Amino acid sequence: MRHLLGLRDISPERLLQLLERAAELRTQVAAQDSKRLSLLRGKAISLLFVEPSTRTRFSFEMACRRLGAEPLVFSASHSSTSKGETLADTARVLERVGADALVLRHKGVGAPHQLSEILKIPVINAGDGINEHPTQGLLDLLTIRDHFPEFEGLTVGIVGDVLHSRVARSACFGLRKLGARVLFAGPGTLCSPDLDALGAEVRHTIDEVIADVDVLMMLRIQRERLGASMLASEREYRHFWGLTSDRAARLRDHAIVLHPAPMNRGVEIDDAVADGPRSRIFPQMANGVFARMAVLLDTLEVA
Amino acid sequence: MRHLLGLRDISPERLLQLLERAAELRTQVAAQDSKRLSLLRGKAISLLFVEPSTRTRFSFEMACRRLGAEPLVFSASHSSTSKGETLADTARVLERVGADALVLRHKGVGAPHQLSEILKIPVINAGDGINEHPTQGLLDLLTIRDHFPEFEGLTVGIVGDVLHSRVARSACFGLRKLGARVLFAGPGTLCSPDLDALGAEVRHTIDEVIADVDVLMMLRIQRERLGASMLASEREYRHFWGLTSDRAARLRDHAIVLHPAPMNRGVEIDDAVADGPRSRIFPQMANGVFARMAVLLDTLEVA
Amino acid sequence: MRHLLGLRDISPERLLQLLERAAELRTQVAAQDSKRLSLLRGKAISLLFVEPSTRTRFSFEMACRRLGAEPLVFSASHSSTSKGETLADTARVLERVGADALVLRHKGVGAPHQLSEILKIPVINAGDGINEHPTQGLLDLLTIRDHFPEFEGLTVGIVGDVLHSRVARSACFGLRKLGARVLFAGPGTLCSPDLDALGAEVRHTIDEVIADVDVLMMLRIQRERLGASMLASEREYRHFWGLTSDRAARLRDHAIVLHPAPMNRGVEIDDAVADGPRSRIFPQMANGVFARMAVLLDTLEVA
Repeated sequence: MRHLLGLRDISPERLLQLLERAAELRTQVAAQDSKRLSLLRGKAISLLFVEPSTRTRFSFEMACRRLGAEPLVFSASHSSTSKGETLADTARVLERVGADALVLRHKGVGAPHQLSEILKIPVINAGDGINEHPTQGLLDLLTIRDHFPEFEGLTVGIVGDVLHSRVARSACFGLRKLGARVLFAGPGTLCSPDLDALGAEVRHTIDEVIADVDVLMMLRIQRERLGASMLASEREYRHFWGLTSDRAARLRDHAIVLHPAPMNRGVEIDDAVADGPRSRIFPQMANGVFARMAVLLDTLEVA
Repeated sequence: MRHLLGLRDISPERLLQLLERAAELRTQVAAQDSKRLSLLRGKAISLLFVEPSTRTRFSFEMACRRLGAEPLVFSASHSSTSKGETLADTARVLERVGADALVLRHKGVGAPHQLSEILKIPVINAGDGINEHPTQGLLDLLTIRDHFPEFEGLTVGIVGDVLHSRVARSACFGLRKLGARVLFAGPGTLCSPDLDALGAEVRHTIDEVIADVDVLMMLRIQRERLGASMLASEREYRHFWGLTSDRAARLRDHAIVLHPAPMNRGVEIDDAVADGPRSRIFPQMANGVFARMAVLLDTLEVA
Repeated sequence: MRHLLGLRDISPERLLQLLERAAELRTQVAAQDSKRLSLLRGKAISLLFVEPSTRTRFSFEMACRRLGAEPLVFSASHSSTSKGETLADTARVLERVGADALVLRHKGVGAPHQLSEILKIPVINAGDGINEHPTQGLLDLLTIRDHFPEFEGLTVGIVGDVLHSRVARSACFGLRKLGARVLFAGPGTLCSPDLDALGAEVRHTIDEVIADVDVLMMLRIQRERLGASMLASEREYRHFWGLTSDRAARLRDHAIVLHPAPMNRGVEIDDAVADGPRSRIFPQMANGVFARMAVLLDTLEVA
């Protein structure tokens, strides 16, 4: 069975194939008026979202529909987990009822890995706690690849709450695997030196990152951490860690800016940067659909 | 870009075309066994419902499906707005992910107008706070047109909480535009004399309205206002403002009764009236699907 | 109008036809690559779930899609019932908007029966309070029929909270109708002697049931009853009423085990039994889709 659980253990060959296929699908969709292919016609894809999500769920739904598959959505509020059923049993139900693949978002680290050992259908990780979010990593890489032909020699900065970011982890694993250099920076409580174990260099300020990068990925700061013991106010966060217009002006001429969204505008990123010429934040979202189409075809082994 | 934001600023020509097209679609659907046309095949319509709704959402979903389009529903509980994302960014995501049009229900007055300035896809207002609900206005007009060939010379009464009613506003704008006369009545706190600015005459009691109208539109009273400072009990509301069987008996012979629903039976309308021969309340709902089909075709400029 | 409200009043002929058709559909789906038939193409099936549900809703959705029909889901959180609308009015809306059939899950006993008297479309009961859950009964019977050619002469034990179980009731009605013998057992507060009025024999312990049955159906115990006045702890429940590995070893050689799920593993059933060779719990779920396909075709009178 061919799952997609994370980018940590994927082979560079499969990773490059996924990116290549996503780009091809984008071309095919653009060329075709109806915006739909029919490679997965008649397939049912179960989207089990035990954590809430707008963009990831919507993006997977659109990916399914563009391939002719039926997305069957389960959000937390509908699920039997409130009745004390184990996740494994819920997933087995979806399999037995007829799902051809299972896309899982869950707060538990390793939840999709656990299901992949039980089910006889492909499992796709749509975010497991603070561990990985591999389809987000793929869309980040696809967006970078649209601007830079080679990952080798590229430097990518990832700034913010790296410690709790599955987005940072998946991007870092994917980038390192393809030969890019990764710099992390963030408040000490959210970006400790031992994160270099992920294969990145850890720096102490955003300003030590800015001038060196080809790509700057700003992370979302969770408001619930602000004002709590870990961090001071939004204003202070912006002052020390935000990608302000001033800081953006010090980026290299060709550098681009990414953000996984949802954004806290005026906190980790200024409006002028989010909506400015370096921003690839909205194209990232369009790429997400193609990345997920590629993953569905890959895991269901449709050529 | 061709949006539908309200009936206040629509041209009478476009309004009549929408009504005409809705009636044509109804005929086409009735004639065709499968109940589906395919004019919007391959299109994805995003339904962003930040306020809850049964009938409007269901009606839009059905309208999409009957035209071969895929509705992609976002209700409040799934949305990222709980994560502090701006509405504009959420909408941009839906656009970038591939929505061909956006249908928005939102508590903020002017929310769809704001999005229409940002997005490159049509925006359809499915209710913005206390401002407008133009597709409801269209279905009201379509239902009236089914009984009275000309709007010119027609008198329509709208009774209840006019002040907070986007339904009343959209109906009033549309009716005035096509030459009908509109009478408002309601409790003083919910229907003040200055509402004549909308183009209607304001009267003091329901009994001053009853005998003069060809169409009587009863508004839903929100239970949360009853018993609060604005109003007395349900019983008192019925006594002074409800369309009781006694009052309905004083309507002109040909007069019909509308209600946007959901109804509070026994408060603003008696069971015997809601289910009686003058009631066009359930046909209104059937017309809603055809009105929304017409709006989707119109905004997506499909001939 | 042909509804499916319960198995209590269904004719044995219709019951057997439904089982026969479900089995045929299973064969047809297995033979066909796309997994979809098109008998209900263009039909819209409204799934009104006022109580939450994972498996039943998912199963109906899948049944609709496999027949080419569009499922239009309404869960409690979206519905207008929070606005004080009656269930009857909500259902009338769904009918008028264009639903070709209504599937209802509701906590009120008799809710689907009430709607069946009002609507002009078929109503399918997907669980009404503690009364009936006929499509679950059908899938239970279908699973039993897969192992035993004749119901006549068969003994089926149903163990646990029989008093509150619509699953037990529908299964019992169906089994008795086809000539099987039914044994009930459960804690005295949840399985009183007067339940013999349903056509079953009531026994006092699970051990008085084990050795006599061809089929043992374990019921879900609702955790909210445990520790409350009705029952002691989970541990005590397992000790007195659980299908432990020890007890399962005393079943007749050919006996099979069912459970409607979601399961409380380690309470009413041990892991080793749920996942063991006698268990037909996961095949039950696969059968649910075929049972519901048969019901949709039957109620919509599609040959």
